[in-house]
Amino acid sequence: MNLILFSQADTFTSSDGELRVRINDARRLAHLHQVHRAEEGKMYRLGEINGAMGRGELLTLTEQVAEFSFVAEQQPPAALNVHVLLALPRPRMLARSLENMAALGVKRITLINTARVEKSFWQSPELREEKIMHHLQLGLEQCCDTLMPQVDSAPRFKPFVEDQLPALLAERRGLVADPGAALPCPRGLPVETPLLLAIGPEGGFVDYELEQLQQTGVEGVQLGARILRVETAVVALLSRLY
Amino acid sequence: MNLILFSQADTFTSSDGELRVRINDARRLAHLHQVHRAEEGKMYRLGEINGAMGRGELLTLTEQVAEFSFVAEQQPPAALNVHVLLALPRPRMLARSLENMAALGVKRITLINTARVEKSFWQSPELREEKIMHHLQLGLEQCCDTLMPQVDSAPRFKPFVEDQLPALLAERRGLVADPGAALPCPRGLPVETPLLLAIGPEGGFVDYELEQLQQTGVEGVQLGARILRVETAVVALLSRLY
Repeated sequence: MNLILFSQADTFTSSDGELRVRINDARRLAHLHQVHRAEEGKMYRLGEINGAMGRGELLTLTEQVAEFSFVAEQQPPAALNVHVLLALPRPRMLARSLENMAALGVKRITLINTARVEKSFWQSPELREEKIMHHLQLGLEQCCDTLMPQVDSAPRFKPFVEDQLPALLAERRGLVADPGAALPCPRGLPVETPLLLAIGPEGGFVDYELEQLQQTGVEGVQLGARILRVETAVVALLSRLY
Repeated sequence: MNLILFSQADTFTSSDGELRVRINDARRLAHLHQVHRAEEGKMYRLGEINGAMGRGELLTLTEQVAEFSFVAEQQPPAALNVHVLLALPRPRMLARSLENMAALGVKRITLINTARVEKSFWQSPELREEKIMHHLQLGLEQCCDTLMPQVDSAPRFKPFVEDQLPALLAERRGLVADPGAALPCPRGLPVETPLLLAIGPEGGFVDYELEQLQQTGVEGVQLGARILRVETAVVALLSRLY
């Protein structure tokens, strides 16, 4: 937790009219006590979800609550202008992939179904909104960013590719990670470059899915001969592209 | 396990003089049964540790043993010519970092002590040689490579930097990941470029350590404003450099 994230619901106005932030959930309090070894009177980095980042003094700290002052200082870092289509990975890998994507600056994620996604993954408790938000928040707290990514899902591949993908590709260059592609993954694009990046499941997209993506205008790109786990490939692709 | 790794000790010669591979450890057998749903008569990708990769037919499969034929077909993929100095991370992060480095093609790793490495990490069972080999093997099996990385450790920072680092830097350009550096991380170097890459602990190197590294000839490079977890930074740096 390099940045203490708070929401507008965590704020209140003190009796002398100053903005205050009140943290009273168990996870953040435990982190303040155990990792930060937080002390009243010290300054901390704080950021409002989807708002500014800044600093605040820890005014009160008990086992139940932490209260900070807050002065906004700067906007969050530039986001990557990429929409990631991620074949739904197994739950633990989903958690880490969400954290990593949030930490790297991804703001649009669609979890998609493909032939090699195990059906049971769609029933995982990790797909509950509060679980997804939790992992995204961990990623933002790690990297010091406040802009919460949007995550949705497309549990049917073909309708998504036929009905929704063309509109997304009207605004973005589409790339799909494919070890068999001829084109090496592009490198060092400006963060504002509008991309859509499709990442398959363990074992990859099946040929039919790759053909459908490519017919819709998504280009195959490869990272070399090595086959990476999904959570590693996500980081490797984003770090190379931007 | 995209590649079934075996060692010379796993091989024997059949009665008709053919090379055979015998797998009889619980982990690989369980993977063959449960993930591959392996069947006698089918072909599998096999590779000899530090040797060639190829294919083999599964000749015998029981709960206790799997026996394959093996025909060498190709050399393993090109390695990254990088020596990674990794501040010893917490055990779970060490495990994932070793797997990721092995999967990305790193062949030389030195685990170093720094001021912000918790002393208890040096007592972790994850540092036992068989544990380290296990995680490296998982990485190689994932990416399809046979060249086992070498891992050693430097539990004292200053003697390592003063006595061993200069000789390493005689052959390699030294880089240290430092969010405060002016130089952006170089991109897209040929895999044969000899580099030494130092990656600090959670919280980073302390100023004194950065100064010592830089005085010895290691250049600071940065990945941007976002603070990444060690295991994410390892992948992000290597994917950007090569």
